[in-house]
Amino acid sequence: MNEKALSHLDENQMPTMVDVAHKQQTYRMARAQVKVIMPVEVMQNVQNQELIVKKGPVIQTAIIAGTMAVKKTWDLIPMCHPLAIESIKFETIWQKNVLVIDCICKLTGKTGVEMEAMTGASIAALTVYDMCKALSHDILITDLRLIEKTGGKSDIKA
Amino acid sequence: MNEKALSHLDENQMPTMVDVAHKQQTYRMARAQVKVIMPVEVMQNVQNQELIVKKGPVIQTAIIAGTMAVKKTWDLIPMCHPLAIESIKFETIWQKNVLVIDCICKLTGKTGVEMEAMTGASIAALTVYDMCKALSHDILITDLRLIEKTGGKSDIKA
Amino acid sequence: MNEKALSHLDENQMPTMVDVAHKQQTYRMARAQVKVIMPVEVMQNVQNQELIVKKGPVIQTAIIAGTMAVKKTWDLIPMCHPLAIESIKFETIWQKNVLVIDCICKLTGKTGVEMEAMTGASIAALTVYDMCKALSHDILITDLRLIEKTGGKSDIKA
Amino acid sequence: MNEKALSHLDENQMPTMVDVAHKQQTYRMARAQVKVIMPVEVMQNVQNQELIVKKGPVIQTAIIAGTMAVKKTWDLIPMCHPLAIESIKFETIWQKNVLVIDCICKLTGKTGVEMEAMTGASIAALTVYDMCKALSHDILITDLRLIEKTGGKSDIKA
Amino acid sequence: MNEKALSHLDENQMPTMVDVAHKQQTYRMARAQVKVIMPVEVMQNVQNQELIVKKGPVIQTAIIAGTMAVKKTWDLIPMCHPLAIESIKFETIWQKNVLVIDCICKLTGKTGVEMEAMTGASIAALTVYDMCKALSHDILITDLRLIEKTGGKSDIKA
Amino acid sequence: MNEKALSHLDENQMPTMVDVAHKQQTYRMARAQVKVIMPVEVMQNVQNQELIVKKGPVIQTAIIAGTMAVKKTWDLIPMCHPLAIESIKFETIWQKNVLVIDCICKLTGKTGVEMEAMTGASIAALTVYDMCKALSHDILITDLRLIEKTGGKSDIKA
Repeated sequence: MNEKALSHLDENQMPTMVDVAHKQQTYRMARAQVKVIMPVEVMQNVQNQELIVKKGPVIQTAIIAGTMAVKKTWDLIPMCHPLAIESIKFETIWQKNVLVIDCICKLTGKTGVEMEAMTGASIAALTVYDMCKALSHDILITDLRLIEKTGGKSDIKA
Repeated sequence: MNEKALSHLDENQMPTMVDVAHKQQTYRMARAQVKVIMPVEVMQNVQNQELIVKKGPVIQTAIIAGTMAVKKTWDLIPMCHPLAIESIKFETIWQKNVLVIDCICKLTGKTGVEMEAMTGASIAALTVYDMCKALSHDILITDLRLIEKTGGKSDIKA
Repeated sequence: MNEKALSHLDENQMPTMVDVAHKQQTYRMARAQVKVIMPVEVMQNVQNQELIVKKGPVIQTAIIAGTMAVKKTWDLIPMCHPLAIESIKFETIWQKNVLVIDCICKLTGKTGVEMEAMTGASIAALTVYDMCKALSHDILITDLRLIEKTGGKSDIKA
Repeated sequence: MNEKALSHLDENQMPTMVDVAHKQQTYRMARAQVKVIMPVEVMQNVQNQELIVKKGPVIQTAIIAGTMAVKKTWDLIPMCHPLAIESIKFETIWQKNVLVIDCICKLTGKTGVEMEAMTGASIAALTVYDMCKALSHDILITDLRLIEKTGGKSDIKA
Repeated sequence: MNEKALSHLDENQMPTMVDVAHKQQTYRMARAQVKVIMPVEVMQNVQNQELIVKKGPVIQTAIIAGTMAVKKTWDLIPMCHPLAIESIKFETIWQKNVLVIDCICKLTGKTGVEMEAMTGASIAALTVYDMCKALSHDILITDLRLIEKTGGKSDIKA
Repeated sequence: MNEKALSHLDENQMPTMVDVAHKQQTYRMARAQVKVIMPVEVMQNVQNQELIVKKGPVIQTAIIAGTMAVKKTWDLIPMCHPLAIESIKFETIWQKNVLVIDCICKLTGKTGVEMEAMTGASIAALTVYDMCKALSHDILITDLRLIEKTGGKSDIKA
């Protein structure tokens, strides 16, 4: 731990963007995951839609919101670099009354896309919450974490 | 459950904004909470800063990011109304290696500010993650939920 | 015509926002319409989706994009006022190979929402174009116009 | 038609961004065109300005609005990639009472700029509408289409 | 000075938005001014345009940019409230080789518009700089200040 | 002066973005500086914070606001290109009651980052103003200028 430091603080302890000007471009990928735990009745309501319309408007709206949020991660997280993201995908699966949302981002660039994947998953989950909250506020967004990352200094695989 | 429906879907099951044109303005408040669980070493690093600089640059940056995100909730969550938010506050507390972040929003308006509070807490937590991730990616953002809401059809108090 | 002038130019012929500070708030509505003319094969492809998933992902994505665009009309059209829009709805109907999109906006405010409705319809149509262009670029976005407006100095009904 | 599919839908029929991570950068250009049909009196009013101030504040404001809109196409059209556009130009010409607006975009990149050109032309036309609507709402925005595209899989020239 | 404190810090010295939820709406105005000092040759170049096209494209572009920036002040200055600004005007005058830009904002609201006027003047001045910098970088933006403010706790008149 | 022209005007004197499609990427840096002159009492108040919390929340908030503003320069200055900025740093120093703010930007790209540095310095200064204005409006933002630029056609060093 000794050699490591908070990369977003400069020598005066002021927040600062990491300088990547002299880094090489590499192909990078990151996958983040979040869980939305909802009451069984809300789950059934959302899933009933799915019977009719496949993934259904709730999940589709969440995917669109998450996709658009990935693209503005740099405008939300102060020290993130603006990135010309090249691929954004979402995968969703039900585990009983838990909706699991994965957001996968790709880029050939000088810095990683983990914050983009984390932000996309967050906003997708918040959109599910927003669309279901008329039924119940007893919805929990939880376990947001990075589960895979390749192309940077060190790869991660949860 | 029978009378209730997903408010953000219209009669064709298409996503739609709730029409609030004929609602009265009331004073509304919402408080959302999120937890950031981090390895003890990361916690110590963040807290050491705090010894020097009080809440420290990590938490302060998170508060600023969260404040700015609250103001653009309508641009992140597709069916949210644009709101002229009147107060945004953050409270943070350490529970061992868990940073608990509360976001409290207020508005005199036609619709509630719960999504604003939820979004503010989320982005604040993601900013903490971003500023600490050079130390460890083993950070979990969890238990995001609404804990208080007043001024709408029904009050909530967790 | 003599008494009228371009309201968005000041006495120096410079672009300017209309001053609405001393106007009264009234309830306002506007409906804009646009047509997307596509080759029969593209129409069939989009409609086949609809058989499975009702309005289908193309139209649903267009509605979400249009809804979000309405909310940032003030950031796109230089002299538009920022408005806290209270209702946004979309109606779509097929006329043979022509997709007709209506965008309806409502607000209790000092200025009308016609530019919001026009912008929402435009971006919804552009989103349809974007999602279909892999099949054919022979798609025309046409006949964008205001078809109804109430609550301002003069009502309009096409 | 058989081999082709809507590129912005994944195998679950969910909207998705096209993955361009492994594509080569090429030089790309696109030209979109839109027509604004206005009553003769409005045209004369706009053109009278032009006598005094050349292209005049209406058209100049439209060009500025269109230029700025091109740069945020990715924030308007959900599945568009963020692009670091390298050139944006507008050409305008009067055909009697019809204002014809061309928007030309260029980029060396992995994906085309046709949505950027289409969006720029749309917002420029909407800005003309906004600046003239105090004179008449009888203005039609029509015939928005791609008229040229080079640098991608297939070139287009209308 | 004793009773006064930095209003944007809370009791923990953390940045915070001022809570205006319980304030009354009043009519408010603010005027900010900035000066752009340029070499005589640049001034002549900009003014020559003006002979042809009145205020000319440089100043007109600056006014449009300033107008649009006023509307997003809340997205630039972290602790500013989002405001539905009701009037934005610019006045420009030459004092030899100095371009003086005034930005005047109005609002009926709970908080003042001085940051909006200051931001609008700043971005207008930066736009003049951007459009002239191919001629010379020896341009100074200076003396940005609030010169008038009414409608709040205390009026100001420079 | 004869060969030079305002680069952001086309042959019709209309504002236009400079076409950089055929330029080479080079490593570029720019440094802009601005001064905030404040009454001695305000300076002491801000500096007292600093004693406690090092650079203090006022300056830290200004740095964060400036960093975020640099990233959206293209959305503020109409003819600026969108840039994927690679490094943003701020340096602040007190000269008696004058706070001097430097903003340094870096990019490997086809166009310079001077407008980004100028915009970042401006918004940082405006944020200081915003956070101190409850104490006094007698604060002047002045002497904003480019002091260094490398990597383009001509280097500048003030």
